[in-house]
Amino acid sequence: MSKTNAGYFFEDYAVGQTFHHGPLRTVGEGERALYQALYPTRFAVHMSDPTAQAIGLKRAPLDDMIVFHKVFGATVPDISLNAVANLGYADVRWLQPVYPGDSLGARTQVIGLKQNSNGKTGIVWVRTVGVNSMGEDVLSLIRWVMVRKRDENAPPPDPVVPDLPQVVPAEDLVVPRALNFENYGESGVRAPHRLGDYAVGEVIDHVYGVTMEDAEHMMATRLWQNTAKVHYDITARPQGQRLIYGGHIISMARALSFNGLESAEFMVAINGGAHVNPCVAGDTVRAWSEVLDTAETSTPGVGALRLRLVATKGGEAGALFGADQHYLPDVLLDLDCWVLMPL
Amino acid sequence: MSKTNAGYFFEDYAVGQTFHHGPLRTVGEGERALYQALYPTRFAVHMSDPTAQAIGLKRAPLDDMIVFHKVFGATVPDISLNAVANLGYADVRWLQPVYPGDSLGARTQVIGLKQNSNGKTGIVWVRTVGVNSMGEDVLSLIRWVMVRKRDENAPPPDPVVPDLPQVVPAEDLVVPRALNFENYGESGVRAPHRLGDYAVGEVIDHVYGVTMEDAEHMMATRLWQNTAKVHYDITARPQGQRLIYGGHIISMARALSFNGLESAEFMVAINGGAHVNPCVAGDTVRAWSEVLDTAETSTPGVGALRLRLVATKGGEAGALFGADQHYLPDVLLDLDCWVLMPL
Amino acid sequence: MSKTNAGYFFEDYAVGQTFHHGPLRTVGEGERALYQALYPTRFAVHMSDPTAQAIGLKRAPLDDMIVFHKVFGATVPDISLNAVANLGYADVRWLQPVYPGDSLGARTQVIGLKQNSNGKTGIVWVRTVGVNSMGEDVLSLIRWVMVRKRDENAPPPDPVVPDLPQVVPAEDLVVPRALNFENYGESGVRAPHRLGDYAVGEVIDHVYGVTMEDAEHMMATRLWQNTAKVHYDITARPQGQRLIYGGHIISMARALSFNGLESAEFMVAINGGAHVNPCVAGDTVRAWSEVLDTAETSTPGVGALRLRLVATKGGEAGALFGADQHYLPDVLLDLDCWVLMPL
Repeated sequence: MSKTNAGYFFEDYAVGQTFHHGPLRTVGEGERALYQALYPTRFAVHMSDPTAQAIGLKRAPLDDMIVFHKVFGATVPDISLNAVANLGYADVRWLQPVYPGDSLGARTQVIGLKQNSNGKTGIVWVRTVGVNSMGEDVLSLIRWVMVRKRDENAPPPDPVVPDLPQVVPAEDLVVPRALNFENYGESGVRAPHRLGDYAVGEVIDHVYGVTMEDAEHMMATRLWQNTAKVHYDITARPQGQRLIYGGHIISMARALSFNGLESAEFMVAINGGAHVNPCVAGDTVRAWSEVLDTAETSTPGVGALRLRLVATKGGEAGALFGADQHYLPDVLLDLDCWVLMPL
Repeated sequence: MSKTNAGYFFEDYAVGQTFHHGPLRTVGEGERALYQALYPTRFAVHMSDPTAQAIGLKRAPLDDMIVFHKVFGATVPDISLNAVANLGYADVRWLQPVYPGDSLGARTQVIGLKQNSNGKTGIVWVRTVGVNSMGEDVLSLIRWVMVRKRDENAPPPDPVVPDLPQVVPAEDLVVPRALNFENYGESGVRAPHRLGDYAVGEVIDHVYGVTMEDAEHMMATRLWQNTAKVHYDITARPQGQRLIYGGHIISMARALSFNGLESAEFMVAINGGAHVNPCVAGDTVRAWSEVLDTAETSTPGVGALRLRLVATKGGEAGALFGADQHYLPDVLLDLDCWVLMPL
Repeated sequence: MSKTNAGYFFEDYAVGQTFHHGPLRTVGEGERALYQALYPTRFAVHMSDPTAQAIGLKRAPLDDMIVFHKVFGATVPDISLNAVANLGYADVRWLQPVYPGDSLGARTQVIGLKQNSNGKTGIVWVRTVGVNSMGEDVLSLIRWVMVRKRDENAPPPDPVVPDLPQVVPAEDLVVPRALNFENYGESGVRAPHRLGDYAVGEVIDHVYGVTMEDAEHMMATRLWQNTAKVHYDITARPQGQRLIYGGHIISMARALSFNGLESAEFMVAINGGAHVNPCVAGDTVRAWSEVLDTAETSTPGVGALRLRLVATKGGEAGALFGADQHYLPDVLLDLDCWVLMPL
């Protein structure tokens, strides 16, 4: 009898079913240093205790994307081991900062199911909540994946397609408790722009490019506990290349976006996103953003900027679709997100 | 006069001679994160404070293999700088967990010597004991290496070949103090199998493969303080390739073995082992295990599983020897070890 | 309007101008482990709490070069974003140890300016002081860079060329407070030589070589916050190669120098240095040192050794210049520095 986890197939899921992905994983100083080594991030709050303390936090929290990746990774064995594709995200919201020494876990509920017309696969919608060891929620996200059926003859479930928000309303964004940007400018940050400096429709070229390395994306992907074979094993793909984990591209794009979005200290929501084209070692990843919206939050002095954050392996900033209305071949990621910055 | 350490040659060793390899090296959070980035390990106790506390430990200890590598690495300048080959291990026993912030050192005693018939090299048997900064022993191991003579005309020593245990008896396995698996299952671990689920003779395919990268094995090898040139320097080997440190392969195999051995939380002994074929960047490392024995320990609820843990760069799980009774060319490592898991 | 920082050009600088490069960056356990993974350093004090405590420090400080790189990196956005070349260093002095958990920042004053005769570039001399979060100075350095003009027609400034010390006088070296080497030898260190064992003119071959990897130098360069494109982006250079950051070579040479300079625990000053030839992945970096001077310090038992520390990608130890009096093509780095060691 095989001792290895075969994972769940489409017919194993039922709406309402809940998974407790365990165990909690402790994250700390090491993850912070590795994050700064793997990604060119320079956002101040997450790497500077003095800056974090200047804005009311107890110390520098771990990068928001560390939390996202760790929570996402915890769900892979139950949710996406037999996934053909990660189709999308919705209503991703960070609920509070995570600090070195915290332990992170996740639970997931199936909120939708629909068999595909080919009878071989189906779509599973889930809501995942990341938790810390104090039992507090730190992240909530919806994603949907295409999952293989074990048995093509298994009867399809009654289709349930959840009603998903296109965009997280600004009033639902959760500003970290005690966050106060009043002394932000005096904390030594290099952040020339504030919310009022950004105009809807503005495209920001983040300029820098980073050429991808197999050793780097593999280290990142292991750290985020994503175990999908295609990221590690050159024999698992016909081209003999390892496919770079989409989460690595998200972190790369977010880090590159510092250049032009210096004060966008917190990633607070992802409204939606798609990994559009594959990325492999040797590709040079760049990023640009388009300002989609601006909003105030319930916390005085804290504004929210809605961005289309795009990662590419070439092409002009702002270029997204071709004449055929399809994504250009160099576009890697199209992410719709909210970030927090001082007003 | 050369200031660099030429290392010891065969004729410099005497039975009974003791080396204090210093200094103690402090290990911490950073090593833990790097370990998770370099190896696909997912064993819960070593990465989760809550799980470790649920089974009686004060917090998540550092991976057992970090301890092995650090202790081993400390001995290299005195023992294996002029080694032609690391021939084998015996009676490797972990004696207690090591926690972030501890400092590790080692002392070694020569326990055997035998010149080879070619007169150019000899075999040195040593027992190394790893210690922490409280002066406690944390690891004990025997290994033997083939070492070059400085002077081929130096007289051979009286041969002393130690009597080595083929297998560490189950009653000699040291279960971590205070370990209590009673609440293990409630700590959120993903570990479907217990000792009773494994049958002697069973072969477990750990399925996943990881393609090797030079940057990764070099980072690991530096972290474990192994300074042998062949691991770092393409000019040191005729093929212009760096040879991957055997310790990196052991950690890779152990990490891969999670898939099928999820509850084997502690590596507690290595009975023997051989690095059978070389491994270089581009090779894809896989692993399989054969169950050799099962035993109870003196601690209620804690069982021991004796495994043959094999790393390969191809071939079927369970395939070890060819028709010629030699190891198959794709076999990299053949390790005989004991792990601890709940009964 | 572009939101990205275009950096300063030559005509933007004025003698006396001061930059506060913010924010402070917190450094910790993770940086220490990564440093040991990226460089083959084995100096005891910086990796062993017990050894550090044996010589009077509170615990193992972070490697001196981590401090140098972090302080240097903090200045890049203000000083060298439009630099054509980093021309030299002078009067680099470490002022006190930095410990895990400290936060590092820097301020810089322009101390010299001189337009080049081509009218397109100029030389900017700066003094940078690294500070910790207690407001204490931890490092002081002078460097000069060649910076592009934005507008070639901008008028040249009055030339001010600072008078730079060729060598930091031994009496200006700052020995860490409380440093006492009396018990150093009993702390288990492997350091056979003391100051008196080194003779002026002696050349020490550090023997080992390390083949460079893109993933490694990129991780290091991000960790040190150096954002220059040439280090990350194969499209930024005609040859399609990434240029390895000079700071990576300095750390590599310093780490390699352990082999022969085992007791040179502290880098305490850099008198001058030049990155002589470019280095790229695949090159194998070696190092050798020449003893230039020895001195006592104001602290009893603490000696200083002045070294020419040379990194190469080939050639004999001691070979520096060709028949044409130019650096040999394999020489990468020529660094003149002071290290501290026991008398």
